[in-house]
Amino acid sequence: MKPGEFDLIARLARAAAKGSGTGVAIGIGDDAAVLEPRPGCELVSCIDTLVSDVHYPASTPAPAVGHKALAVNLSDLAAMGAVPRWALLSLALPAPSADWLDGFAEGFFKLAGRHGVSLTGGDTVATTGPAVISVQVLGEVPAGEALTRAQAQPGDQVAVTGTLGGAALALKKVLAGEVPEPGLRQLLDRPEPRVAAGLELRGLASAAIDLSDGLASDLKRLADASGVAIEVDVPRLPLHPELAGQSNLLPLALSGGDDYELCFCLPSRHEDKTKAALAALGLPMTIIGSVAAGSGLAWRTAEGAPLEVADGYEHFGS
Amino acid sequence: MKPGEFDLIARLARAAAKGSGTGVAIGIGDDAAVLEPRPGCELVSCIDTLVSDVHYPASTPAPAVGHKALAVNLSDLAAMGAVPRWALLSLALPAPSADWLDGFAEGFFKLAGRHGVSLTGGDTVATTGPAVISVQVLGEVPAGEALTRAQAQPGDQVAVTGTLGGAALALKKVLAGEVPEPGLRQLLDRPEPRVAAGLELRGLASAAIDLSDGLASDLKRLADASGVAIEVDVPRLPLHPELAGQSNLLPLALSGGDDYELCFCLPSRHEDKTKAALAALGLPMTIIGSVAAGSGLAWRTAEGAPLEVADGYEHFGS
Repeated sequence: MKPGEFDLIARLARAAAKGSGTGVAIGIGDDAAVLEPRPGCELVSCIDTLVSDVHYPASTPAPAVGHKALAVNLSDLAAMGAVPRWALLSLALPAPSADWLDGFAEGFFKLAGRHGVSLTGGDTVATTGPAVISVQVLGEVPAGEALTRAQAQPGDQVAVTGTLGGAALALKKVLAGEVPEPGLRQLLDRPEPRVAAGLELRGLASAAIDLSDGLASDLKRLADASGVAIEVDVPRLPLHPELAGQSNLLPLALSGGDDYELCFCLPSRHEDKTKAALAALGLPMTIIGSVAAGSGLAWRTAEGAPLEVADGYEHFGS
Repeated sequence: MKPGEFDLIARLARAAAKGSGTGVAIGIGDDAAVLEPRPGCELVSCIDTLVSDVHYPASTPAPAVGHKALAVNLSDLAAMGAVPRWALLSLALPAPSADWLDGFAEGFFKLAGRHGVSLTGGDTVATTGPAVISVQVLGEVPAGEALTRAQAQPGDQVAVTGTLGGAALALKKVLAGEVPEPGLRQLLDRPEPRVAAGLELRGLASAAIDLSDGLASDLKRLADASGVAIEVDVPRLPLHPELAGQSNLLPLALSGGDDYELCFCLPSRHEDKTKAALAALGLPMTIIGSVAAGSGLAWRTAEGAPLEVADGYEHFGS
């Protein structure tokens, strides 16, 4: 057999075999994988695709690309309150090298191992264009307990985990030819999916979404899905320290994207319990606004004046 | 909101809502889909990616691309004996037009509807390179009953459904600038995944694989996975009628790929029952060889002489 596609898959299969997941009756190597779901659970399923130089700078080290390709999907599962279990990987690559694949696998499987995720299959193809990397993940949630975007209620508070705008600032610096300091670059290259936080939010939050495209467009989606109005107090936003006090950088926190924090709504009576649960994970939670009857997203300044905010990033924007 | 990614997803969501699948608690429009598996079943999961001008001619009509992107995945489920249930779609496109997307959706959902598959999520991204289309499918099989590549036994017969080489002949003509007659082109553009046949093979076949890369490389994989030797009688191969009697075209049937028929092993005592079950589906079945102790794949001519056959298509072959 020629060296080729099957060697790449075999390489990933060897790396996958080191994974820590369970519930795999048949893994990589047959026409499809056979998985053993837990009784009483529903499945939570999504796919997210990264394109080189669209979703990550082409200069991103291979291990960071492997990490991020999985992380953006685990972030979606986190927003649903699901336990991640299995993943599939499709790599369309212009010029795969063993070094790049080993690096990619290192980043991918390190994150997968921390979350008990098994890679159960994949596909490697050649493209003459930029790398296109699709990861599909499958998680589980007790039947009927998934968090959604659609159940926010008037009177709820709106909260976010962590800080906002750090990844967008790192990207801005990279695009300007600057070298962000490592901690900032880390936010862009290796976002930490808030899986444990999502599990804590089950039964406490009324609605949740992960922040991938930016607070402005993601929170608008949550408001629309729930059929409510949301008002955000801009001064309360937990800006990344490098954005603090620099109003020209505020748009990075509002619509820069790539935060991969969770944004969620919760009844006031759950605030203390939720904050304590997230604090136990080492994760700050900040109330940033409130839910009201009506529709749309509004922003208020410290003086209570309305603020105009552009929507988040769209890959096919005109 | 700008016209963009979210419009494309909304367009697919509207088309998906017309689908006939069941078991979807939350479909397109949240961070992830929530699916309701059937108790007592295992999940069967795979992903397959098509790249324009690698896996299909760039001239292929959009409805055929939509059909084929799903069909190649349903073919993998068929080889496992699984009932298809849910799909996810990732489209990386250089220049998406509403017309192309509507055409793609038409082909995709027509096939999905016939197999009761629900599209439950997706991702649309821009690329400067050729279109890269990933489809992930999820099916179900009663626990422990999945067909695999790994259980062929010495003494088994080797069989295939349908005919071989038609799609490869169509591709050869397209690449030569010829126009294959519509029935032949159909084999290339709109392969019919053998889902119903796969269900019939459960409990009858000892091992199965779908023919995507060509009989030579796919059957070699089955032999390796089962730890057996397989011998194929070349004169018994069910060649597509346009290949019959033209020995120069024989390689198209052996290693041309894109057949999407099922190749399987079965004990002789199951031959009549299996043939009748497939005939009831309107699908011919042909015994093409046998399984023996040992390893590797061997080909015999009418005179019983060995024949050298090159491996199938590899996308990253050197």
